[in-house]
Amino acid sequence: MPDIDQDDLTIALRLADAARHAILPFFRDTSLRAENKLENGFDPVTRADRAAEEVMRDLLACERPQDGILGEEFGSAPSQSGRTWVLDPIDGTRGFIAGTPTWGVLIALSDDTGPKLGVIDQPYIGERFWGMAGAAACDGPHGASALKTRATQALQDAILFTTFPEVGSDAERRAFEAVSRQVKLTRYGMDCYAYALLAAGQIDLVIEAGLNPYDIQAPIALIEAAGGIVTDWDGGPAHDGGRALAAANADLHRAALEQLHSA
Amino acid sequence: MPDIDQDDLTIALRLADAARHAILPFFRDTSLRAENKLENGFDPVTRADRAAEEVMRDLLACERPQDGILGEEFGSAPSQSGRTWVLDPIDGTRGFIAGTPTWGVLIALSDDTGPKLGVIDQPYIGERFWGMAGAAACDGPHGASALKTRATQALQDAILFTTFPEVGSDAERRAFEAVSRQVKLTRYGMDCYAYALLAAGQIDLVIEAGLNPYDIQAPIALIEAAGGIVTDWDGGPAHDGGRALAAANADLHRAALEQLHSA
Repeated sequence: MPDIDQDDLTIALRLADAARHAILPFFRDTSLRAENKLENGFDPVTRADRAAEEVMRDLLACERPQDGILGEEFGSAPSQSGRTWVLDPIDGTRGFIAGTPTWGVLIALSDDTGPKLGVIDQPYIGERFWGMAGAAACDGPHGASALKTRATQALQDAILFTTFPEVGSDAERRAFEAVSRQVKLTRYGMDCYAYALLAAGQIDLVIEAGLNPYDIQAPIALIEAAGGIVTDWDGGPAHDGGRALAAANADLHRAALEQLHSA
Repeated sequence: MPDIDQDDLTIALRLADAARHAILPFFRDTSLRAENKLENGFDPVTRADRAAEEVMRDLLACERPQDGILGEEFGSAPSQSGRTWVLDPIDGTRGFIAGTPTWGVLIALSDDTGPKLGVIDQPYIGERFWGMAGAAACDGPHGASALKTRATQALQDAILFTTFPEVGSDAERRAFEAVSRQVKLTRYGMDCYAYALLAAGQIDLVIEAGLNPYDIQAPIALIEAAGGIVTDWDGGPAHDGGRALAAANADLHRAALEQLHSA
């Protein structure tokens, strides 16, 4: 299996550029809302999602024909290299529909042990976060900088983000609330942007449930490259989706995991 | 009392420019977090808040010495003109602390009947929404455009935003949930940015409680200028704070008010 390297990062950033161009014309375009009704329920976010995934798949077919693809919209293409590109053109479709600037393009490259390279791109703000091989960075309105997760040790000092109460079962919500009661601040509704903020050292924890593999693989690679840790709620790999606990460091991860299990 | 006019709008936009420059150096500056501990608890958001309000007050002292000021940080200065500038340098301090791009600078100009001019500015995105006298506009990553609220008639087609579950009493939350159960989509955690999205025709309803006058006066003027309506939960004026119901149009406002009262 070819190593995942800087050339792959270059491809990942080109994918993100292509997705941006494909998606932005659809974002906040109020004229599309009426048009939509004439077109068999093909809403703007679905059109943007598909347009972006198509352009990314075309680029990969050209540049990385041996690699597999797992995409939200067009399913999976088998890998001949042992490597797979995992694409979610618009993570946070409800946020996209509502015009918020916290949805994102998610791009990951995985080998048989999990995601090794991850990109979270926010096209409207023009902000991008990426990481691989122990180094993470971002570029946006404040310019470019390296990313490093926080050193927060205690839950009582932590800032927690989640998509609860919009997702998850009642039991999952109770477990989430056991952590939420311990932290300094809990905030809601940020979609994949919360993972980017964790990688950027702005927040400490993200707890989610009901995830698909393409929702979480890019955040895993990004956050691990910035010094954090992402697992499922049992401390195992999270890259197959389901429940995820992302933490700025191992100590905080351990403390949050204990609270999740106390519920 | 001098009419509120285009010259006042020019002043309001200069205030927003000044606040942007004062605040942005503090946003997401991870080096300030350590420094903060040496300085009597003066955290970065408080420093940014105060710096922005000071620069806005200085400008008003020079340009509008007869007008009153009501500011979040430095209280009220009496009006000799019957007009008052209402300033919230950082609405959404919890969002600011967490690095999210949905806090905002709120600037309103009110006469004795309520706010007549309103600005919501998001410095990090470089996005600004303003309205007065029946016309509203925005400028940002997509360029400049006029704003108009949506024509959505039924709650079942509406997108609702709120800061619940972070604010409000249990009774207020039950009333909010009575509306939330009827709508197509409810989203959380967007601070003042939700009001901007309503003015921009992206969403339909915002329901909040526990507001201060400086939290709501700019949104009222902006949304009314874009065609919407903002009242308290009894249909009366909302500019003194407390509970607010913002709607894209009068029909939707009536439907939401009925649900709030049904709880």
